[in-house]
Amino acid sequence: MDLAVEAHDLARAKTGAEIPGVRVEKETFSHATVTVVRVETAEAEQIMQKPRGTYITIDAPGLRQNDRTVHQEIVKLIGDKVGLLIQDLRLPKEMSVLIIGLGNWHATPDALGPRTVDYTLVTRHLFRYAPQEVGQGIREVSALAPGVLGVTGIESAEIIRGVVEKVQPHLIITVDALAARNVERITTSVQLANTGISPGSGVGNDRTGINRETMGIPVIAVGVPTVVHAAFIAGDAMERLWQELNKNPNMQKVYKVLHPDLVQNVVDDLLKPHGGQLMVTPREIDTLIQNTSRIVAGGIAAALHPGIPPEDYSLYLG
Amino acid sequence: MDLAVEAHDLARAKTGAEIPGVRVEKETFSHATVTVVRVETAEAEQIMQKPRGTYITIDAPGLRQNDRTVHQEIVKLIGDKVGLLIQDLRLPKEMSVLIIGLGNWHATPDALGPRTVDYTLVTRHLFRYAPQEVGQGIREVSALAPGVLGVTGIESAEIIRGVVEKVQPHLIITVDALAARNVERITTSVQLANTGISPGSGVGNDRTGINRETMGIPVIAVGVPTVVHAAFIAGDAMERLWQELNKNPNMQKVYKVLHPDLVQNVVDDLLKPHGGQLMVTPREIDTLIQNTSRIVAGGIAAALHPGIPPEDYSLYLG
Amino acid sequence: MDLAVEAHDLARAKTGAEIPGVRVEKETFSHATVTVVRVETAEAEQIMQKPRGTYITIDAPGLRQNDRTVHQEIVKLIGDKVGLLIQDLRLPKEMSVLIIGLGNWHATPDALGPRTVDYTLVTRHLFRYAPQEVGQGIREVSALAPGVLGVTGIESAEIIRGVVEKVQPHLIITVDALAARNVERITTSVQLANTGISPGSGVGNDRTGINRETMGIPVIAVGVPTVVHAAFIAGDAMERLWQELNKNPNMQKVYKVLHPDLVQNVVDDLLKPHGGQLMVTPREIDTLIQNTSRIVAGGIAAALHPGIPPEDYSLYLG
Amino acid sequence: MDLAVEAHDLARAKTGAEIPGVRVEKETFSHATVTVVRVETAEAEQIMQKPRGTYITIDAPGLRQNDRTVHQEIVKLIGDKVGLLIQDLRLPKEMSVLIIGLGNWHATPDALGPRTVDYTLVTRHLFRYAPQEVGQGIREVSALAPGVLGVTGIESAEIIRGVVEKVQPHLIITVDALAARNVERITTSVQLANTGISPGSGVGNDRTGINRETMGIPVIAVGVPTVVHAAFIAGDAMERLWQELNKNPNMQKVYKVLHPDLVQNVVDDLLKPHGGQLMVTPREIDTLIQNTSRIVAGGIAAALHPGIPPEDYSLYLG
Repeated sequence: MDLAVEAHDLARAKTGAEIPGVRVEKETFSHATVTVVRVETAEAEQIMQKPRGTYITIDAPGLRQNDRTVHQEIVKLIGDKVGLLIQDLRLPKEMSVLIIGLGNWHATPDALGPRTVDYTLVTRHLFRYAPQEVGQGIREVSALAPGVLGVTGIESAEIIRGVVEKVQPHLIITVDALAARNVERITTSVQLANTGISPGSGVGNDRTGINRETMGIPVIAVGVPTVVHAAFIAGDAMERLWQELNKNPNMQKVYKVLHPDLVQNVVDDLLKPHGGQLMVTPREIDTLIQNTSRIVAGGIAAALHPGIPPEDYSLYLG
Repeated sequence: MDLAVEAHDLARAKTGAEIPGVRVEKETFSHATVTVVRVETAEAEQIMQKPRGTYITIDAPGLRQNDRTVHQEIVKLIGDKVGLLIQDLRLPKEMSVLIIGLGNWHATPDALGPRTVDYTLVTRHLFRYAPQEVGQGIREVSALAPGVLGVTGIESAEIIRGVVEKVQPHLIITVDALAARNVERITTSVQLANTGISPGSGVGNDRTGINRETMGIPVIAVGVPTVVHAAFIAGDAMERLWQELNKNPNMQKVYKVLHPDLVQNVVDDLLKPHGGQLMVTPREIDTLIQNTSRIVAGGIAAALHPGIPPEDYSLYLG
Repeated sequence: MDLAVEAHDLARAKTGAEIPGVRVEKETFSHATVTVVRVETAEAEQIMQKPRGTYITIDAPGLRQNDRTVHQEIVKLIGDKVGLLIQDLRLPKEMSVLIIGLGNWHATPDALGPRTVDYTLVTRHLFRYAPQEVGQGIREVSALAPGVLGVTGIESAEIIRGVVEKVQPHLIITVDALAARNVERITTSVQLANTGISPGSGVGNDRTGINRETMGIPVIAVGVPTVVHAAFIAGDAMERLWQELNKNPNMQKVYKVLHPDLVQNVVDDLLKPHGGQLMVTPREIDTLIQNTSRIVAGGIAAALHPGIPPEDYSLYLG
Repeated sequence: MDLAVEAHDLARAKTGAEIPGVRVEKETFSHATVTVVRVETAEAEQIMQKPRGTYITIDAPGLRQNDRTVHQEIVKLIGDKVGLLIQDLRLPKEMSVLIIGLGNWHATPDALGPRTVDYTLVTRHLFRYAPQEVGQGIREVSALAPGVLGVTGIESAEIIRGVVEKVQPHLIITVDALAARNVERITTSVQLANTGISPGSGVGNDRTGINRETMGIPVIAVGVPTVVHAAFIAGDAMERLWQELNKNPNMQKVYKVLHPDLVQNVVDDLLKPHGGQLMVTPREIDTLIQNTSRIVAGGIAAALHPGIPPEDYSLYLG
């Protein structure tokens, strides 16, 4: 489960109660809802299967509608919320930030991270070679798309660790495509977390986490759902069918005996031949990835470069 | 339903009997199975929801494994079978053929047609402007990717009809991405049909058919499944669940009362918010489309240009 | 010579006088200069090697700087000037317009036309299938990227003629990559002409013109220089060398004897092995083509759809 | 000057004599000529402006003709010659090799390196996570495309150094697009050098070298010319003009007075406004880069994985 809001909903549904050690707040904006999930105890970590930390999810169904007003609000929201997460870290004001675009350029739904790197306002080389060109309110930013294990033969975390030792940033911001449970979240939600990335999460299959433990510096993870595993669609369909059947009293006995093993077995039979690699995406995923990458890159720039007005971002692109 | 073999399986499953007016033959090759479905009567057309004609499906699970030996066998098989369909049409030996790549360049799973055009051995301009360069066993071939309605504002069939009147070919071969019911068929099946394309079929949404009626000349349709609608995954999961439940005698009553409306309602509730545009594809669809386009273009070249050995195809690419 | 302003400068340089039958006007804007060249007589046609008509060139060196303010001014300027050319044609207010993107998707400097089609606000299908969605101030627009002869085997003009007969537009607007003489014009000039396209012009090699004679309806041609032939760079270098040498009186005799055959011979020796296909482009041509396509598509939309505010263009993209 | 053969020709032309400390050998093959230039002394380094080492250039005009027989010969030749350079290094047989694709994905002529990484047979992850899948004659290979300074804000050499410290390879092989002096070499020459990459060479602008000094391990550099600077075309044209003029005795005095400052001044006047970023490429550069990347990747695989027959390479691609 990549999204903390979904993990939280599921945990509550399972236990039928609030999760101890988890605090949730909601805010509403013109085109977006923001949910902050705070995982605060070891017990909560266990139940949520998420490391302790703050998870901010921005939900904006309008992101899919290609409406510039919505896009601008979300850029600003990402900027504000990334800014808040950074503020809590009490890093030096003159900090250096390394943006990491995880994922595979050549698999459309997994290309969100590398594309965001392309749209990122990188300034570290100016600080080095042309400091007079760097104005007020601009931070030292570098960026890297390390590629995926199947293409490089190297774990992303190893590459990043090597580069961190050379570049010596104060903070890493990763950008990654996520798998959601709910198809409505595809390219309409953005999750920001101050926990970095846990091993094995994301659309890709990295075995090593990218977080304060493995990197030695804080890691903010920005993630956008771009796919839903086909297994969830199949599973959800069956769950809904059960719910309908359950209205019939005879069924309830059957349900108790068979469920949930039966559901899992059916999903396995149906999809196992494909090794869990079947993904559900909207048909227009190519365009959605392109737009969302720009929005995420814009939001990160708003947080890191308060001195650059958004209309001038393009002047700084390499 | 885009694939005749799937329509046939479904029709038999529903009626529990052979379909009158449909003849089926199977052939086995080292890396492929070929199924020929002949729809021969008006009644069969009705049951199969497929126009009268011959539908040849080549199934080659190895196509996904990126193995050159398999690829070469399939190129040859496509060449042979397209050759047979052409032979039945009794066209003049010196015929001119127009290849049409249907679909949208910018939506990966729908880009099979336009990409095949890119790999197509086009010779019509040589016949016109440099006939001395045209050797034996080479046919006059032209190609067009007309784009999709949302990008052009024009029905593909209108564009093709306009071009046919200018180019005056004897035969059209369309190449299109299909939606399958079964995920195992994604980029592992190739369907060849002498019926052309019916209105509203394919991954795209063309309202007008591309066939002998609308074009005035015969149309061979080559199609490769590249997606499965998410609704089928959901529906199939529920069907399998029903089958399991049905083993319990109590369930059989429930089944008769609720099914199949309930299944359809659940699918609608689950997926309607997304307008039926949710597609299931393997994660590596970008690479699969690229390989399959080459194979289809190679097979068509083998059928049309017996005088060009496959190793020289690249010499003729524009 | 693709640009009328360059043809005009050259003709004046050769004859050392104003060209009879050619009228030139200049206008200055914050970030652009507009030059209108009117070729008005048969004699002028002959000298300029350009058909009679109006050629409007917008020169905006800032286009290369990726500055949104400049981009917006140029979008508006293109819109105004295309609007003026259309007004002179006295077409019905409810006219239908077909946008044609000439060139080759897969050769970066030649991809301007096809990319502009991608960014074009196409509405014809709405007029047909959902007229209630069409607001005030929106015109019926369709678009097509016909491909190039080497890929399709069909002349672009034949494809367009076929489509025109089906779609029956009142006006064609072509968009094409041009070759300039002067490297400073690459993606900084936009030429608008009410003459359509003459045979053999443009970066591609179409043999048939796309103009009122071949299409039966008026054709406005929008062109943007994206390359300079290497031969011009070589030739210009030698011309400048001659000019320097000519300051020496001894040289003037030599010059008269040898020039200009010698210059041509040297260029031929240097570049002939490459068949005239060597192009000079800025290294960042990929990005420049992408930005310029958006600007051209935006300008055309401004002219055709006065009812759509620019911030809503994205709502209409397919 | 990126190519040692060109540097050598130029040095001989300037001095009118053989260069002391430089040894040259030539070999001829059916579709290629191989020139080995050995720079053996400090004096030779100085004259050639190339570090001491072995530079092997494979010239194969047929590479542009898209002929599979030629391609296969060149793949084998690259394999053999890279193999010889490796043999001289006396590395352990079970060595680990890191392939580095230098350059910019998004600037076509500079994309050769990153594309070669895509086609590279990477095996390091198999050695780690699935050693049982690794057969005989397969070496541990990893690969990285570090991006360019303008996109990452980090020197390529810093990124590579960081990754080398983690991956600990025995050898680096870099792949890079080069600038040639002679347009005939564009995508028809391949240079292999055991010197690595000097600061500031290549189509890109890296300030730090990638060689044994900066990396601590040997570096083999594979380079393919993809562009010629426009300045060379202009300069060459003028040189040829001078040569013609020089046949006239009067001219020889003028020549001595004015040349070569005049030539340089003319080039500067002509091209300076564009910051030296004007590149000459064949129009079909997109296709040429794609083919050449495959050939280079194939050649490297032939050298490193003698146990994998070429027809099985695709089985190992990620």
